[in-house]
Amino acid sequence: MPAKITLARAFDRIAEAWSPKIIGAVNGMHVKLAKLEGAFEWHSHATEDELFLVVAGRLRMEFREGVRVLEPGDMIVVPHGVEHRPVAEPECQILMVEPASTVNTGQVVTDRTREPEWLLPEDAA
Amino acid sequence: MPAKITLARAFDRIAEAWSPKIIGAVNGMHVKLAKLEGAFEWHSHATEDELFLVVAGRLRMEFREGVRVLEPGDMIVVPHGVEHRPVAEPECQILMVEPASTVNTGQVVTDRTREPEWLLPEDAA
Repeated sequence: MPAKITLARAFDRIAEAWSPKIIGAVNGMHVKLAKLEGAFEWHSHATEDELFLVVAGRLRMEFREGVRVLEPGDMIVVPHGVEHRPVAEPECQILMVEPASTVNTGQVVTDRTREPEWLLPEDAA
Repeated sequence: MPAKITLARAFDRIAEAWSPKIIGAVNGMHVKLAKLEGAFEWHSHATEDELFLVVAGRLRMEFREGVRVLEPGDMIVVPHGVEHRPVAEPECQILMVEPASTVNTGQVVTDRTREPEWLLPEDAA
Protein backbone atom coordinates (compact mmCIF):
# COMPACT_ATOMS: atom_id res chain seq x y z
CA MET A 1 0.00 0.00 0.00
CA PRO A 2 1.42 3.42 -0.86
CA ALA A 3 2.89 5.34 2.07
CA LYS A 4 1.49 8.57 3.38
CA ILE A 5 4.01 11.36 3.70
CA THR A 6 3.42 14.10 6.23
CA LEU A 7 5.33 17.07 4.88
CA ALA A 8 6.01 18.65 8.27
CA ARG A 9 7.62 15.45 9.55
CA ALA A 10 9.61 15.00 6.34
CA PHE A 11 11.00 18.53 6.64
CA ASP A 12 12.19 17.67 10.16
CA ARG A 13 14.59 15.19 8.56
CA ILE A 14 16.22 17.77 6.32
CA ALA A 15 19.18 19.47 7.94
CA GLU A 16 20.96 21.22 5.08
CA ALA A 17 19.57 24.18 3.17
CA TRP A 18 19.56 24.08 -0.65
CA SER A 19 19.76 20.29 -0.68
CA PRO A 20 16.53 18.91 -2.20
CA LYS A 21 15.36 15.48 -1.03
CA ILE A 22 13.15 13.25 -3.14
CA ILE A 23 9.92 12.11 -1.49
CA GLY A 24 8.03 10.70 -4.46
CA ALA A 25 8.06 9.87 -8.17
CA VAL A 26 5.22 10.45 -10.62
CA ASN A 27 5.85 9.14 -14.14
CA GLY A 28 9.45 10.28 -14.36
CA MET A 29 8.99 13.42 -12.32
CA HIS A 30 10.42 13.79 -8.87
CA VAL A 31 8.62 15.36 -5.97
CA LYS A 32 11.20 17.02 -3.74
CA LEU A 33 11.32 18.94 -0.51
CA ALA A 34 13.91 21.58 0.24
CA LYS A 35 14.75 24.09 2.90
CA LEU A 36 16.03 27.38 1.54
CA GLU A 37 18.00 30.10 3.31
CA GLY A 38 18.96 33.38 1.72
CA ALA A 39 19.79 33.75 -1.97
CA PHE A 40 20.59 31.08 -4.54
CA GLU A 41 22.33 31.38 -7.90
CA TRP A 42 20.73 32.77 -11.04
CA HIS A 43 20.12 29.80 -13.29
CA SER A 44 17.80 28.17 -15.80
CA HIS A 45 17.06 24.64 -16.95
CA ALA A 46 17.41 23.78 -20.64
CA THR A 47 14.46 21.38 -20.81
CA GLU A 48 12.93 21.08 -17.35
CA ASP A 49 9.94 23.02 -16.04
CA GLU A 50 9.86 23.43 -12.26
CA LEU A 51 6.95 23.76 -9.88
CA PHE A 52 7.56 25.49 -6.55
CA LEU A 53 4.95 25.35 -3.79
CA VAL A 54 5.73 27.22 -0.60
CA VAL A 55 4.90 25.21 2.53
CA ALA A 56 6.40 27.54 5.17
CA GLY A 57 8.18 30.88 5.18
CA ARG A 58 8.48 33.28 2.28
CA LEU A 59 10.08 32.77 -1.13
CA ARG A 60 11.03 35.67 -3.35
CA MET A 61 11.35 34.33 -6.91
CA GLU A 62 13.34 36.78 -8.99
CA PHE A 63 13.08 36.89 -12.77
CA ARG A 64 14.88 39.17 -15.18
CA GLU A 65 11.60 41.11 -15.64
CA GLY A 66 10.47 41.25 -12.03
CA VAL A 67 9.72 39.44 -8.84
CA ARG A 68 7.03 37.16 -7.39
CA VAL A 69 6.77 36.86 -3.62
CA LEU A 70 5.29 33.55 -2.51
CA GLU A 71 3.91 32.69 0.91
CA PRO A 72 2.55 29.40 2.22
CA GLY A 73 -0.08 28.03 -0.14
CA ASP A 74 1.32 29.93 -3.13
CA MET A 75 2.85 28.14 -6.12
CA ILE A 76 4.58 29.05 -9.35
CA VAL A 77 5.72 27.09 -12.38
CA VAL A 78 9.02 28.25 -13.88
CA PRO A 79 9.12 27.08 -17.51
CA HIS A 80 12.34 25.67 -18.93
CA GLY A 81 14.69 28.28 -20.29
CA VAL A 82 13.48 31.01 -17.92
CA GLU A 83 16.22 32.47 -15.75
CA HIS A 84 15.28 32.65 -12.10
CA ARG A 85 16.86 33.22 -8.72
CA PRO A 86 15.15 31.89 -5.61
CA VAL A 87 15.68 33.99 -2.49
CA ALA A 88 14.32 32.81 0.85
CA GLU A 89 13.31 35.67 3.15
CA PRO A 90 15.01 34.61 5.36
CA GLU A 91 14.10 30.91 5.27
CA CYS A 92 11.43 28.82 3.66
CA GLN A 93 10.30 25.27 3.04
CA ILE A 94 9.20 24.30 -0.44
CA LEU A 95 7.79 21.37 -2.33
CA MET A 96 9.03 21.01 -5.89
CA VAL A 97 7.90 18.91 -8.84
CA GLU A 98 10.32 18.59 -11.74
CA PRO A 99 11.74 15.97 -14.12
CA ALA A 100 14.07 13.46 -12.47
CA SER A 101 16.87 14.83 -14.68
CA THR A 102 16.76 18.29 -13.09
CA VAL A 103 20.00 19.65 -11.60
CA ASN A 104 19.29 22.14 -8.83
CA THR A 105 21.72 24.75 -10.13
CA GLY A 106 20.60 24.33 -13.74
CA GLN A 107 23.17 25.12 -16.40
CA VAL A 108 25.86 26.13 -13.91
CA VAL A 109 27.82 23.93 -11.50
CA THR A 110 28.55 25.52 -8.14
CA ASP A 111 29.46 24.32 -4.67
CA ARG A 112 25.73 24.06 -4.07
CA THR A 113 25.11 21.66 -6.94
CA ARG A 114 23.57 18.52 -5.39
CA GLU A 115 22.67 15.04 -6.54
CA PRO A 116 19.34 14.67 -4.75
CA GLU A 117 18.80 11.65 -2.53
CA TRP A 118 15.62 9.96 -1.45
CA LEU A 119 14.25 10.67 1.98
CA LEU A 120 12.95 7.37 3.38
CA PRO A 121 9.19 7.10 2.97
CA GLU A 122 7.18 7.18 6.14
CA ASP A 123 4.83 4.32 6.83
CA ALA A 124 2.13 6.25 8.59
CA ALA A 125 -1.25 4.76 9.36
CA MET B 1 6.98 36.48 -16.04
CA PRO B 2 5.33 33.34 -14.64
CA ALA B 3 2.16 33.94 -12.62
CA LYS B 4 1.85 33.20 -8.94
CA ILE B 5 -1.12 31.05 -7.99
CA THR B 6 -2.58 31.34 -4.52
CA LEU B 7 -4.24 27.99 -3.91
CA ALA B 8 -6.89 29.34 -1.52
CA ARG B 9 -8.04 31.88 -4.10
CA ALA B 10 -8.00 29.31 -6.88
CA PHE B 11 -10.19 26.96 -4.84
CA ASP B 12 -12.70 29.80 -4.46
CA ARG B 13 -13.27 29.58 -8.21
CA ILE B 14 -14.17 25.90 -8.15
CA ALA B 15 -17.88 25.27 -7.63
CA GLU B 16 -18.36 21.61 -8.52
CA ALA B 17 -17.00 18.69 -6.52
CA TRP B 18 -15.07 15.95 -8.34
CA SER B 19 -14.27 18.26 -11.25
CA PRO B 20 -10.49 18.82 -11.35
CA LYS B 21 -9.23 22.14 -12.75
CA ILE B 22 -5.79 22.54 -14.28
CA ILE B 23 -3.63 25.28 -12.76
CA GLY B 24 -0.24 24.45 -14.22
CA ALA B 25 1.79 22.24 -16.54
CA VAL B 26 5.23 20.78 -15.83
CA ASN B 27 6.79 18.85 -18.71
CA GLY B 28 3.63 17.08 -19.79
CA MET B 29 2.22 16.72 -16.30
CA HIS B 30 -0.80 18.68 -15.16
CA VAL B 31 -1.14 20.28 -11.76
CA LYS B 32 -4.81 20.22 -10.81
CA LEU B 33 -7.01 21.35 -7.97
CA ALA B 34 -10.20 19.60 -6.97
CA LYS B 35 -12.86 19.75 -4.32
CA LEU B 36 -14.07 16.37 -3.16
CA GLU B 37 -17.25 15.47 -1.32
CA GLY B 38 -18.08 11.99 -0.13
CA ALA B 39 -17.01 8.83 -1.94
CA PHE B 40 -15.73 8.40 -5.48
CA GLU B 41 -15.57 5.31 -7.68
CA TRP B 42 -13.03 2.52 -7.30
CA HIS B 43 -10.63 2.90 -10.23
CA SER B 44 -7.07 2.67 -11.41
CA HIS B 45 -5.00 4.23 -14.18
CA ALA B 46 -3.24 1.97 -16.67
CA THR B 47 -0.10 4.09 -17.04
CA GLU B 48 -0.49 7.22 -14.92
CA ASP B 49 0.86 7.71 -11.40
CA GLU B 50 -1.06 10.26 -9.33
CA LEU B 51 0.07 12.54 -6.55
CA PHE B 52 -2.54 13.74 -4.05
CA LEU B 53 -1.70 16.52 -1.60
CA VAL B 54 -4.41 17.50 0.86
CA VAL B 55 -4.79 21.26 1.23
CA ALA B 56 -7.92 21.37 3.41
CA GLY B 57 -10.23 18.82 4.99
CA ARG B 58 -9.65 15.11 5.27
CA LEU B 59 -9.16 12.50 2.53
CA ARG B 60 -9.53 8.81 3.18
CA MET B 61 -7.71 6.95 0.41
CA GLU B 62 -8.91 3.38 0.27
CA PHE B 63 -6.83 0.60 -1.24
CA ARG B 64 -7.70 -3.07 -1.56
CA GLU B 65 -5.23 -3.79 1.27
CA GLY B 66 -6.12 -0.95 3.59
CA VAL B 67 -6.64 2.74 4.09
CA ARG B 68 -4.58 5.92 4.41
CA VAL B 69 -6.17 8.93 6.06
CA LEU B 70 -4.68 12.21 4.87
CA GLU B 71 -5.01 15.60 6.49
CA PRO B 72 -3.72 19.00 5.33
CA GLY B 73 -0.02 18.78 4.56
CA ASP B 74 -0.16 15.03 3.89
CA MET B 75 0.51 13.58 0.45
CA ILE B 76 0.45 10.20 -1.23
CA VAL B 77 1.50 8.91 -4.63
CA VAL B 78 -0.76 6.24 -6.11
CA PRO B 79 1.25 4.28 -8.67
CA HIS B 80 -0.35 3.32 -11.97
CA GLY B 81 -2.28 0.07 -11.84
CA VAL B 82 -3.13 0.41 -8.16
CA GLU B 83 -6.84 0.40 -7.45
CA HIS B 84 -7.94 3.20 -5.18
CA ARG B 85 -11.08 4.93 -3.99
CA PRO B 86 -10.87 8.50 -2.67
CA VAL B 87 -13.40 9.34 0.03
CA ALA B 88 -13.65 12.88 1.37
CA GLU B 89 -14.67 13.01 5.03
CA PRO B 90 -16.91 14.88 4.41
CA GLU B 91 -15.18 17.39 2.12
CA CYS B 92 -11.65 18.19 1.15
CA GLN B 93 -9.52 20.25 -1.18
CA ILE B 94 -6.63 18.58 -2.95
CA LEU B 95 -3.78 19.38 -5.28
CA MET B 96 -2.95 16.67 -7.79
CA VAL B 97 -0.01 16.10 -10.12
CA GLU B 98 -0.50 13.57 -12.89
CA PRO B 99 0.17 13.10 -16.60
CA ALA B 100 -1.93 15.29 -18.87
CA SER B 101 -3.51 12.12 -20.26
CA THR B 102 -5.08 11.14 -16.94
CA VAL B 103 -8.84 10.59 -16.85
CA ASN B 104 -10.26 11.25 -13.39
CA THR B 105 -12.27 8.03 -13.28
CA GLY B 106 -9.45 5.91 -14.68
CA GLN B 107 -10.46 2.83 -16.60
CA VAL B 108 -14.18 3.35 -16.07
CA VAL B 109 -16.45 6.00 -17.54
CA THR B 110 -19.14 7.26 -15.20
CA ASP B 111 -21.33 10.34 -14.92
CA ARG B 112 -18.46 11.88 -13.00
CA THR B 113 -15.92 11.45 -15.78
CA ARG B 114 -14.63 14.94 -16.62
CA GLU B 115 -12.46 16.52 -19.25
CA PRO B 116 -10.47 18.90 -17.05
CA GLU B 117 -10.37 22.57 -17.98
CA TRP B 118 -7.85 25.24 -17.15
CA LEU B 119 -8.58 27.68 -14.39
CA LEU B 120 -7.39 31.11 -15.52
CA PRO B 121 -3.99 31.94 -14.04
CA GLU B 122 -3.91 34.75 -11.55
CA ASP B 123 -1.63 37.64 -12.18
CA ALA B 124 -0.73 38.44 -8.61
CA ALA B 125 2.10 40.74 -7.71
